Amino acid sequence: MTYCIGLRLDRGIVFMSDTRTNAGVDNVSVFRKMFTWETPGERVLMLMTAGNLATTQAVVSLLDERSKAPHERNPSILETPSMFQAAREVGETLREVIRSNAMTGQTADSSFNATMILGGQIRGSEPRLFMIYPEGNFIEANGDTPFFQIGETKYGRPILVRAYDPAMGFEDAVKLMLVSFDSTIKANLSVGLPLDVQVYETDSYRLGPSRRIPVDDPYYRNISTGWGEALGQALKSLPDFSFDAE
Amino acid sequence: MTYCIGLRLDRGIVFMSDTRTNAGVDNVSVFRKMFTWETPGERVLMLMTAGNLATTQAVVSLLDERSKAPHERNPSILETPSMFQAAREVGETLREVIRSNAMTGQTADSSFNATMILGGQIRGSEPRLFMIYPEGNFIEANGDTPFFQIGETKYGRPILVRAYDPAMGFEDAVKLMLVSFDSTIKANLSVGLPLDVQVYETDSYRLGPSRRIPVDDPYYRNISTGWGEALGQALKSLPDFSFDAE
Repeated sequence: MTYCIGLRLDRGIVFMSDTRTNAGVDNVSVFRKMFTWETPGERVLMLMTAGNLATTQAVVSLLDERSKAPHERNPSILETPSMFQAAREVGETLREVIRSNAMTGQTADSSFNATMILGGQIRGSEPRLFMIYPEGNFIEANGDTPFFQIGETKYGRPILVRAYDPAMGFEDAVKLMLVSFDSTIKANLSVGLPLDVQVYETDSYRLGPSRRIPVDDPYYRNISTGWGEALGQALKSLPDFSFDAE
Repeated sequence: MTYCIGLRLDRGIVFMSDTRTNAGVDNVSVFRKMFTWETPGERVLMLMTAGNLATTQAVVSLLDERSKAPHERNPSILETPSMFQAAREVGETLREVIRSNAMTGQTADSSFNATMILGGQIRGSEPRLFMIYPEGNFIEANGDTPFFQIGETKYGRPILVRAYDPAMGFEDAVKLMLVSFDSTIKANLSVGLPLDVQVYETDSYRLGPSRRIPVDDPYYRNISTGWGEALGQALKSLPDFSFDAE
């Protein structure tokens, strides 16, 4: 599995992804699941992927090649006039890759499917955040659903639902996302460090700070231990239950 | 779906279950998923069910009937010499019901499967807690895995993993379980109030306090609102992330 979060804030967008891939419980590897493209001053695109690794790597390679050979039939995502068109381009590429695998008549234990989160900004419009399905269609984050998760989404969702605030700063957002990742990693073997973080600041048209959080990162370790204690305190702070009261 | 937790503590066992059943997103109803049998002074059995409602109701009815007509071929769970035998009896009944549905050649959109948590104590041995699979086999909780969840288990798992302590009292356990339920209910439509709570105190050989927590329960509402704030505080109490530090 995988776990990725794409968060839309007032100040921009923050992406975080894990790097664990596995076929069954053996054959565990580390692969980057976050990819970026930029034309400084004009556009920034960030992509996270979950699902069949062969599929997601093929999609990213195709998008990459097209961005370097702009005279191809398919438009490069570095040339689409809008984020909406970029999402369409990614979605169509994804659908094509899945179809071309499935069409050979091959069957696999696992499916060829993949899901992606695309975010970024192109000069002339707001930053936008999309979730792209294996069918090639997609949805956009709005004020009511200001973040997307893909992969192993359930463990880390409650804290996001509770603590997300569009007005929060990038540092607070990263802290919140790390807690969400920690809850997932503690409960599920298929999600693991290192983690990749990428920030995009609205109207900067440049990739913001990024960071790889390694397995032995002292800050992550602090968060992980501290969160256990903080949760204990939080529980204690709630009113006590009593069987007598009614 | 469903959400049930069975928690083994030093002082006994606590069960909590929701009551929502649904076929798709329409046809939503309230059904009890927690069942108890007791012979005061001698044994207490508590059962929670998740899965196909027709299957679980059939299993409970069969167990019930046998406990009232003790001369049947199958031993009543009120007469088994041990908790292990009781778990076997429940498991076999469950497997039989699933098989008899599947054997008619009927196919259904959803499967006939169900999973159950059985806990209790029979005089002469310790309290025991089992998780019973649709295949009729089962596993027992031990010191390393002192609780079981069935149904929609992922959202509410992180807080259990973090805050569970076998030495905690019944009231604290109920509070913890309510937080776990609240995290689930906030994130998933298929789990809903009212909730049922049942306590069993070690060596009492009597059902302990029980409670139904209704939709408008003021204590639950306190926990639900308070938890959001407490989580916010907990996040604040963690050290801040910084992109500059290294």
